[in-house]
Amino acid sequence: MPLFDLPLEELRDYLPARDEPADFDAFWSRTLAEAAEHDLSPTFTPYDIPLTAVDVYDTDFAGWGGDRVKAWFLVPRGAQGPLPCVVKYIGYSGGRGFAHDHLTWPSAGYATLVVDTRGQGAAHVQNPGSTADPHGGGAPHVPGMMTRGVLDPDTYYYRRVFTDATRAVDVAAGHPTVDAEAIVVAGASQGGGIAQAVAALRPDVRAALIDVPFLTHFRRAVEITDRDPYQELVRFLASQRGTPEQVFRTLSYFDGLNFAARGQVPALYSVALMDDICPPSTVFGGYNHWQGPKEITVWPWNNHEGGGPFQVEEQLRHLHKLLAVG
Amino acid sequence: MPLFDLPLEELRDYLPARDEPADFDAFWSRTLAEAAEHDLSPTFTPYDIPLTAVDVYDTDFAGWGGDRVKAWFLVPRGAQGPLPCVVKYIGYSGGRGFAHDHLTWPSAGYATLVVDTRGQGAAHVQNPGSTADPHGGGAPHVPGMMTRGVLDPDTYYYRRVFTDATRAVDVAAGHPTVDAEAIVVAGASQGGGIAQAVAALRPDVRAALIDVPFLTHFRRAVEITDRDPYQELVRFLASQRGTPEQVFRTLSYFDGLNFAARGQVPALYSVALMDDICPPSTVFGGYNHWQGPKEITVWPWNNHEGGGPFQVEEQLRHLHKLLAVG
Amino acid sequence: MPLFDLPLEELRDYLPARDEPADFDAFWSRTLAEAAEHDLSPTFTPYDIPLTAVDVYDTDFAGWGGDRVKAWFLVPRGAQGPLPCVVKYIGYSGGRGFAHDHLTWPSAGYATLVVDTRGQGAAHVQNPGSTADPHGGGAPHVPGMMTRGVLDPDTYYYRRVFTDATRAVDVAAGHPTVDAEAIVVAGASQGGGIAQAVAALRPDVRAALIDVPFLTHFRRAVEITDRDPYQELVRFLASQRGTPEQVFRTLSYFDGLNFAARGQVPALYSVALMDDICPPSTVFGGYNHWQGPKEITVWPWNNHEGGGPFQVEEQLRHLHKLLAVG
Amino acid sequence: MPLFDLPLEELRDYLPARDEPADFDAFWSRTLAEAAEHDLSPTFTPYDIPLTAVDVYDTDFAGWGGDRVKAWFLVPRGAQGPLPCVVKYIGYSGGRGFAHDHLTWPSAGYATLVVDTRGQGAAHVQNPGSTADPHGGGAPHVPGMMTRGVLDPDTYYYRRVFTDATRAVDVAAGHPTVDAEAIVVAGASQGGGIAQAVAALRPDVRAALIDVPFLTHFRRAVEITDRDPYQELVRFLASQRGTPEQVFRTLSYFDGLNFAARGQVPALYSVALMDDICPPSTVFGGYNHWQGPKEITVWPWNNHEGGGPFQVEEQLRHLHKLLAVG
Amino acid sequence: MPLFDLPLEELRDYLPARDEPADFDAFWSRTLAEAAEHDLSPTFTPYDIPLTAVDVYDTDFAGWGGDRVKAWFLVPRGAQGPLPCVVKYIGYSGGRGFAHDHLTWPSAGYATLVVDTRGQGAAHVQNPGSTADPHGGGAPHVPGMMTRGVLDPDTYYYRRVFTDATRAVDVAAGHPTVDAEAIVVAGASQGGGIAQAVAALRPDVRAALIDVPFLTHFRRAVEITDRDPYQELVRFLASQRGTPEQVFRTLSYFDGLNFAARGQVPALYSVALMDDICPPSTVFGGYNHWQGPKEITVWPWNNHEGGGPFQVEEQLRHLHKLLAVG
Amino acid sequence: MPLFDLPLEELRDYLPARDEPADFDAFWSRTLAEAAEHDLSPTFTPYDIPLTAVDVYDTDFAGWGGDRVKAWFLVPRGAQGPLPCVVKYIGYSGGRGFAHDHLTWPSAGYATLVVDTRGQGAAHVQNPGSTADPHGGGAPHVPGMMTRGVLDPDTYYYRRVFTDATRAVDVAAGHPTVDAEAIVVAGASQGGGIAQAVAALRPDVRAALIDVPFLTHFRRAVEITDRDPYQELVRFLASQRGTPEQVFRTLSYFDGLNFAARGQVPALYSVALMDDICPPSTVFGGYNHWQGPKEITVWPWNNHEGGGPFQVEEQLRHLHKLLAVG
Repeated sequence: MPLFDLPLEELRDYLPARDEPADFDAFWSRTLAEAAEHDLSPTFTPYDIPLTAVDVYDTDFAGWGGDRVKAWFLVPRGAQGPLPCVVKYIGYSGGRGFAHDHLTWPSAGYATLVVDTRGQGAAHVQNPGSTADPHGGGAPHVPGMMTRGVLDPDTYYYRRVFTDATRAVDVAAGHPTVDAEAIVVAGASQGGGIAQAVAALRPDVRAALIDVPFLTHFRRAVEITDRDPYQELVRFLASQRGTPEQVFRTLSYFDGLNFAARGQVPALYSVALMDDICPPSTVFGGYNHWQGPKEITVWPWNNHEGGGPFQVEEQLRHLHKLLAVG
Repeated sequence: MPLFDLPLEELRDYLPARDEPADFDAFWSRTLAEAAEHDLSPTFTPYDIPLTAVDVYDTDFAGWGGDRVKAWFLVPRGAQGPLPCVVKYIGYSGGRGFAHDHLTWPSAGYATLVVDTRGQGAAHVQNPGSTADPHGGGAPHVPGMMTRGVLDPDTYYYRRVFTDATRAVDVAAGHPTVDAEAIVVAGASQGGGIAQAVAALRPDVRAALIDVPFLTHFRRAVEITDRDPYQELVRFLASQRGTPEQVFRTLSYFDGLNFAARGQVPALYSVALMDDICPPSTVFGGYNHWQGPKEITVWPWNNHEGGGPFQVEEQLRHLHKLLAVG
Repeated sequence: MPLFDLPLEELRDYLPARDEPADFDAFWSRTLAEAAEHDLSPTFTPYDIPLTAVDVYDTDFAGWGGDRVKAWFLVPRGAQGPLPCVVKYIGYSGGRGFAHDHLTWPSAGYATLVVDTRGQGAAHVQNPGSTADPHGGGAPHVPGMMTRGVLDPDTYYYRRVFTDATRAVDVAAGHPTVDAEAIVVAGASQGGGIAQAVAALRPDVRAALIDVPFLTHFRRAVEITDRDPYQELVRFLASQRGTPEQVFRTLSYFDGLNFAARGQVPALYSVALMDDICPPSTVFGGYNHWQGPKEITVWPWNNHEGGGPFQVEEQLRHLHKLLAVG
Repeated sequence: MPLFDLPLEELRDYLPARDEPADFDAFWSRTLAEAAEHDLSPTFTPYDIPLTAVDVYDTDFAGWGGDRVKAWFLVPRGAQGPLPCVVKYIGYSGGRGFAHDHLTWPSAGYATLVVDTRGQGAAHVQNPGSTADPHGGGAPHVPGMMTRGVLDPDTYYYRRVFTDATRAVDVAAGHPTVDAEAIVVAGASQGGGIAQAVAALRPDVRAALIDVPFLTHFRRAVEITDRDPYQELVRFLASQRGTPEQVFRTLSYFDGLNFAARGQVPALYSVALMDDICPPSTVFGGYNHWQGPKEITVWPWNNHEGGGPFQVEEQLRHLHKLLAVG
Repeated sequence: MPLFDLPLEELRDYLPARDEPADFDAFWSRTLAEAAEHDLSPTFTPYDIPLTAVDVYDTDFAGWGGDRVKAWFLVPRGAQGPLPCVVKYIGYSGGRGFAHDHLTWPSAGYATLVVDTRGQGAAHVQNPGSTADPHGGGAPHVPGMMTRGVLDPDTYYYRRVFTDATRAVDVAAGHPTVDAEAIVVAGASQGGGIAQAVAALRPDVRAALIDVPFLTHFRRAVEITDRDPYQELVRFLASQRGTPEQVFRTLSYFDGLNFAARGQVPALYSVALMDDICPPSTVFGGYNHWQGPKEITVWPWNNHEGGGPFQVEEQLRHLHKLLAVG
Repeated sequence: MPLFDLPLEELRDYLPARDEPADFDAFWSRTLAEAAEHDLSPTFTPYDIPLTAVDVYDTDFAGWGGDRVKAWFLVPRGAQGPLPCVVKYIGYSGGRGFAHDHLTWPSAGYATLVVDTRGQGAAHVQNPGSTADPHGGGAPHVPGMMTRGVLDPDTYYYRRVFTDATRAVDVAAGHPTVDAEAIVVAGASQGGGIAQAVAALRPDVRAALIDVPFLTHFRRAVEITDRDPYQELVRFLASQRGTPEQVFRTLSYFDGLNFAARGQVPALYSVALMDDICPPSTVFGGYNHWQGPKEITVWPWNNHEGGGPFQVEEQLRHLHKLLAVG
């Protein structure tokens, strides 16, 4: 059934109970503090590509545990800083891909930092990734990333990813062309889930663009959708039978519901009502918990592609108004 | 079997016999002459999108039969013309999509014209199209475009498409910012097949970028690949049983083999050895018949995605050298 | 879940609100009046096939816009007219097929007119079609017929189809062997949807046989079934994003609910409770709105095949009683 | 690959070695003789259906082991016998279906006997069967009929089927309206395989119509096609590991190659070059071994549907010429 | 949706109405009495396999109608009887397989009898079967066993299977090494359904181990799951249209709900909440009707694999406690 | 096509060229020597399960890099050592599973060590694994294990696995009940590939049982089979485009062809001719290079299940003869 989730009227009011560990904030403070012990040491190596309007830098920086994380940094050529900057996170299974695939924001006057998701992108023909995740976990995991280290919040894969993503904001903020008070985090699907988390962990960002976010409302997601990547969790639980309590405890430190409840910055969400990868109730769950100024674009006839490039135009206009750019 | 076609060594020498109608050139002269009776009357309506580095125009022009064909025209802002211009054709089932998805060439200093394929793009969530093909044919056709009007070369769908595409070169050439002697036609898959045809019909273009071209070597394609869109032809022949001779006669006016045999301009092809949509022997069939200067990039481990964004970087460098741009 | 729709008890009472445009009747009066300006000019060419009990005519007539529509006309050999006549419409994607596939009604003493659905049947190996739909629309459409011209009721594909179908009744009525007061319209799936519409537009037909009708209760259908052809609409809406209001306005002129609400003649419906192509609630939606005498055969264990040949026997007996034929 | 079998030129000459048991003829003589001990005792119960041109009889007769086999017997109403008669066998998984689905031959002046295939048709929604096969075998079998009793020619399922089919010729021949010297056996796929066998076992039939025959050239079929029903044999051999020699010995008594080599009556075959259920080399294997007068219609673009209703028209014309009927 | 059935809280209380024929007990008394007229005559042929800890016997015995049913009988070598004995039934489509695949219970000190399900296992590569079901039914059936003889309780396939299974208890009880008062019936899926039935028919068994039982609550099963084997019933009903009443009457003699309502011995059930082959409501339906002492293990994240080998360990411990074995 | 690889006669002689790095032996000497610096420190914790014939130990030991690797160690209860010991490796994606699933060899008088494959088994419902692979690589990898660290032989995943597996032989050899001169390595698919490698690296094992081995003849495998896991390599190469040379260099250190060429101990192989996961030419490639005494069981009708439990019986008999056990 294409409309398999709650009807839109109920979604608008859907405010699910959150399962939040008492030390959620402490966990993240500790995590970010530990990471901060590693010098960020970003590099910006000019990338040799015959573009004329944009300067491209092959970038990396010290993410979680000091591991090097790759990124593209793009700056409108000849820009007189400081520029607002969009920090962009990537959807599940993809990587930062190619610089020339990220020209929208630079062409609109924004510096842009496109951050690899560690360990992802090796099977993606369009958007390959180049960042290793040089850590195994304390247990085997289901192929994919969802259950890597999931038995303990300290070893969970997304602890490293969210930390990398948060530090990417510092990379952007520290670049001379960037206006550190005009950093916007953005992403779709996994990238939306990451942006949502970073915006909560870094209330100094200027805005968040959160499309069809993944990694939100795990409990409902695993029961309502048959599709990956949420189903990686179910495959793990089906095999590793004594672990559900442990797994859901870990996930509670990473659930977008808990990040949304801490979100203070202006957020533009989008949701698709026929999305069976990130079902609309999980997206509205996050959106309805969001504390800051917010808007949501509803795509009634779309699956997980959501607004796609339509939403990008919405975002261009949205930020243009918000930041008076372009 | 991933490597289902001829081995690479045989592909390099594969020069299939061509089935060419005696009046091939006459057919196309007449077709283009008839089209020329319609005033091109291009429009360039500034498109309101907050980009700063590129000017975007919502464009249309009179294609085959005078039908209006939509396009995006993008120009690096503040460019001092005349600029080289890339005319880009689209893959099967997609449309011109969104202007902000075509920023690579403008960011490299090229004017860019992205041409809708009439009648396509209504089911494409990322790259919707907006150009009607206001013609039925003299017979029913298989869902899709491959068999639309296929019983007669005069009514065949691709007659209209190739004519539109050829006239798009005039649209580009006629724009004040464009250097009419530096127009490059480009495309992948169906877009590659179109570029191949246009480059043959318009020997005044400066170069052609032809990726994993479709619409080439129909006879072999329908026998060797199980996949669409070539299989649309087989479905038609399986139903409309008296028609094979008629159908293949029509196709002979549109076969990339015959266009390639007339290709004089420098061409950069690409081919993927595991491509089961446009099998490598059909691509090499075209490439080996090409008469002008030529190179081919071979992607040994890819399916129909071919070189994807890698190939775009190759093309940026290739044109940069050829045209001394960027 | 095999029983995915409402339970039978609720279906029996299911009377959905109808979304009917104020000028519904005016639209159809105008449409049929315009068509009537084209002379019907039916042809009945004897078809050379060694049958002894039936005379077969390869028929065509001027449908919408004067376009020629193909049909088979079969008459029991040596029949002393006037005969009752069954006008039969075809399911989605098929055509009139072969004369010898339509011998049931002629063998039961009925003249029979089997009407092509314009533009369909080119991919159907058993029931090929031979009627072109020589019209494009003002926009691209999703492969298939559901969204052809869907942005405007005047250009919508089914405007032409329903008009052809209505004029087919005139073709039958005008033939010397046919009793013009004993014409029955019949069809399954798309054919059922057409018969339902024609029976409403032509209250002078004697009866309607409407099996598992398609094209009825669009709003619910697109939300409740994942399958084609209803999903063609969703693919269009997912791509052509500004259009839903326009699309549903168009569909309101073609929705079987609105035709059923005008149905006065005796109707025999059938429905299958596990039908996930034309879900039972959409069928009962039409049936419950039907105003004339009516019966419905419920097939509890079937999918879209419905009663199949069982239902044909029911219909033979039903008409035999109603018309005292055979 | 759509054209996965030998090229047509090689197919024309393809004459595979046959694996024929020494007692092939003895086996069949004994089998038919044993069956002949059961009185045929056909019944012809008028079937109550309001047809006017055809008389329908619900028929059964004593097949192998005296088991009752269902059939439809249709006679043009008012026919002055003796009439030629088509005995029609059914494709795999279907049954005799409905009388009104078999009106082609009666409408052309032939008596027609449509014979159930015992045990089949219980899952077929269009052509249900009603004949039990009240015998298990001496071993379990793969779901389906191909391996039922396959360890011994005496217990093999098709021994019973071919015997039923042969006796059906007696049923036809014995009916007062039928011209016993003008009986034609016909069928497609499994029905074609049966017709091929019966025509060999009963050289007194007048002709055979054999479309895309199944049950022919087992050895090649199981190696070249991935599809059912031939793959039922492979599933059996994969599970019941000591049995291949025994299985292929059994099959040698039933292989269409061996029947074809005994075929003396005029035969009209058909074959489809893209048929991956009954691959063309298996069909040509039979055809090329056929000893009598023969023709073959080649459908180059079709899969197992073969000529479908086109071929039926060919057959109508073919018999019309051969028998001067209709 | 992974959790497609009732929520666990409702499942705990789910006690569906039972459709029980008045002569249910009489039917089974008669059936078992008739079977008892055949001498059981079990054979225990030592099977030559170089195991040292277990003696293996290739066993058969007279099941329903005196047909020979194969089994493996395994006894811990050197055991001083009498031993408790587990009688194990097999899941759908498999057979007794290999002796060395059934070493768990013998290694724990139990004699073990692994009983073929007649007619099954010919397509199973891991667990082939070797027992014929030398009976057809009075009608054709859907490939598979679910509808074999389903028009009459006397001819229904599972009448023979349940009878075989009940007599297997006698085989075990009669062996000198077995303690006839310590026989436990066990199985998963179809094996669970059989064990459930046998435990009701043979209140002298000591316990039952019933995992994710099949053949229980047919009415709900056919409406709620799209998957085989329950869907075999729907395919039959879709084809053989006059039969539903007859079919459900037959099934009422075999429905696990009715056996469970007679179950007196201690039972350990298991159920999986994401099981879409034997949906949890059908399992709880049986469990909640069970009259004897009972426990159920709930596997919340599993599909039809249920507890798999985890559950086996549970059973080892459960019987160890119950019988003080091992 | 079921028989898609070379015909059996050619397979018997198929001896593909090997691509062997000059330092192959040095690489492995160094690797094993480094591992040897970690004390093996095996643990044997009695596992509490009520078995009577077998003692079960939950075992772990220091594998590559000192990482703990889990295993089951099973010993016939009351055995008077020294016993021969089978060291068993596991197929791709599974883990050591449950002790009671490995009772065949213990029941035949062998000590048995079942070794987890690090990092695998988290998604396997029947055979879960419990051993982490606490190492990432220097690059992202395709979900699964095939490309983990594949850019460098030192970081490649299978370096760790083969090392673990080799050390498992020491674990067995060091246990007091085991006869260190009667250790047999065994496995199917991945387990077969591991056994093949270990038997080459440890010429002191007594024999090898190698079923349908994976990880052998990579070059041909990736070109001839469309299926996983070999296709993980192709997905990597399709995305990470500059890497093929590097990847195949790494694989040359792990290719079963090169291990087979060093195999001296008696080996029993098995191969399935319809195996499209480990195609028969890759298996024969290894077998034909094997230097020691060898036999191969050919399963002509099977896919990757190969001989399954049949082959286990063959192995029981084979070892019984070779070692005079049981």
